[in-house]
Amino acid sequence: MSKPLILVTNDDGIVSPGIKALVEVMTKFGDVTVVAPDSPQSGMGHAITIHDPLRLQKVNVFGDVPSYQCSGTPVDCVKIAIDKIFHRKPDLCVSGINHGSNASINVIYSGTMSAAMEAAIDGIPAVGFSLLDFSFDADFKPAQVYIEKIIANVLKGGIPKDSLLNVNFPKLPSSKIKGMKICRQATAKWEEEFDERIDPNGKAYYWLTGNFVNKDQGEDTDIWALENGYVSIVPVQFDLTHYHAISYINQNWDIHEKMMDKKIDIKKS
Amino acid sequence: MSKPLILVTNDDGIVSPGIKALVEVMTKFGDVTVVAPDSPQSGMGHAITIHDPLRLQKVNVFGDVPSYQCSGTPVDCVKIAIDKIFHRKPDLCVSGINHGSNASINVIYSGTMSAAMEAAIDGIPAVGFSLLDFSFDADFKPAQVYIEKIIANVLKGGIPKDSLLNVNFPKLPSSKIKGMKICRQATAKWEEEFDERIDPNGKAYYWLTGNFVNKDQGEDTDIWALENGYVSIVPVQFDLTHYHAISYINQNWDIHEKMMDKKIDIKKS
Repeated sequence: MSKPLILVTNDDGIVSPGIKALVEVMTKFGDVTVVAPDSPQSGMGHAITIHDPLRLQKVNVFGDVPSYQCSGTPVDCVKIAIDKIFHRKPDLCVSGINHGSNASINVIYSGTMSAAMEAAIDGIPAVGFSLLDFSFDADFKPAQVYIEKIIANVLKGGIPKDSLLNVNFPKLPSSKIKGMKICRQATAKWEEEFDERIDPNGKAYYWLTGNFVNKDQGEDTDIWALENGYVSIVPVQFDLTHYHAISYINQNWDIHEKMMDKKIDIKKS
Repeated sequence: MSKPLILVTNDDGIVSPGIKALVEVMTKFGDVTVVAPDSPQSGMGHAITIHDPLRLQKVNVFGDVPSYQCSGTPVDCVKIAIDKIFHRKPDLCVSGINHGSNASINVIYSGTMSAAMEAAIDGIPAVGFSLLDFSFDADFKPAQVYIEKIIANVLKGGIPKDSLLNVNFPKLPSSKIKGMKICRQATAKWEEEFDERIDPNGKAYYWLTGNFVNKDQGEDTDIWALENGYVSIVPVQFDLTHYHAISYINQNWDIHEKMMDKKIDIKKS
């Protein structure tokens, strides 16, 4: 059986330590190609580049592993990798290891997770990995142990259709990590506070800062797992439909008859 | 009873005709303030600006309606509006009217929808509006009729907790629009094709292009509604957990016992 073709990407940029740690693990599983942003792209969410052209350049960052840097967003990297480098869908896409948490609502803002989601939308098994440590010198070794176990499971047991995985690692040594938990996304949010400053010309500018607020007390959430020494794995979907809300609106809104009236009004007028 | 405080934003930029059409309708319902990007931000998804400061400037674009342009993304606009302009949560946030569809998977890439989602995460009732017409001269009048009906329902019947609405309008005159349908997001995707060109220095660059491919035959989808002359309304959620996948992984993956072995191995080594 031929080795799986694996796309590795991230949002911190191709020279970040996190992607190096991920490439090291993934080469054990298949033929790896790296296509990652040429500069940090944290917080880019599912942004794509529409109004500017993209650049794509072969680079030598990971020795024998074919590697390309792209001027676009993490999602752009996945799109251009499939169309211009692989010329087919890879068998697996992994993104990360992100420097910092993508648990809970952070999944929404995360370039790391959006890259994985883009692959999943295209039908490619995909996993995003993040470590709760922003430090450049973060220790990725404990994460690597679990990534190996997770990828073995992905290749054997698969990921359910129309989903991808959001994996977060606590900032703990291997000996302190209790195991892995399959979780739901905690209901939490950022309360933003902009830091207002005045530039040398007397004009105001603002830095985004904020506090992460988690009021979700559930013990089945990713935040609970991470705070209690577990690796959190959240299966994520890209069908954003809130199905229960469909019936609520159909029952509680006053649209269907009124629309008929409105149509008649319009025809009359 | 005091009038509702309404935040209007978009992703096409503060001078686009779509936001003007939306402001016109919203002033019928409450006290409107506009905070929108100072330049087009289509395809920005849920991007936020982390590594650069933001600018915020009062402008006179909509007569008596207080209006601000922001140098950031649509999500930045919502965040800074709440923290620096309203100093409280507005009672309603509407985004659009976008020039072009945000139906189906487009919701993921859309700055218009991400702005509304950011408000919803903060607990603010939120609706994104889009018209299936990219033209600068698009006719927003038929959309305005329905926006008025939808907002009346939102203010009276509410939007279910932890959801927002993705509203798309077909490119049709009022007389041809059959009404509104509450829908699910169609399972469709973009198949990207990058257009490769050579710059005057002999180096390649790439423009993102693509084809929208919808293989979802359901008659309960937003795409079906739009193709059949209806306004589509999809309730959207930001809890991305794929709940069914949690039990699948717990049952089919080989993680829990192995993790115990692994922990023992690590302790031994």
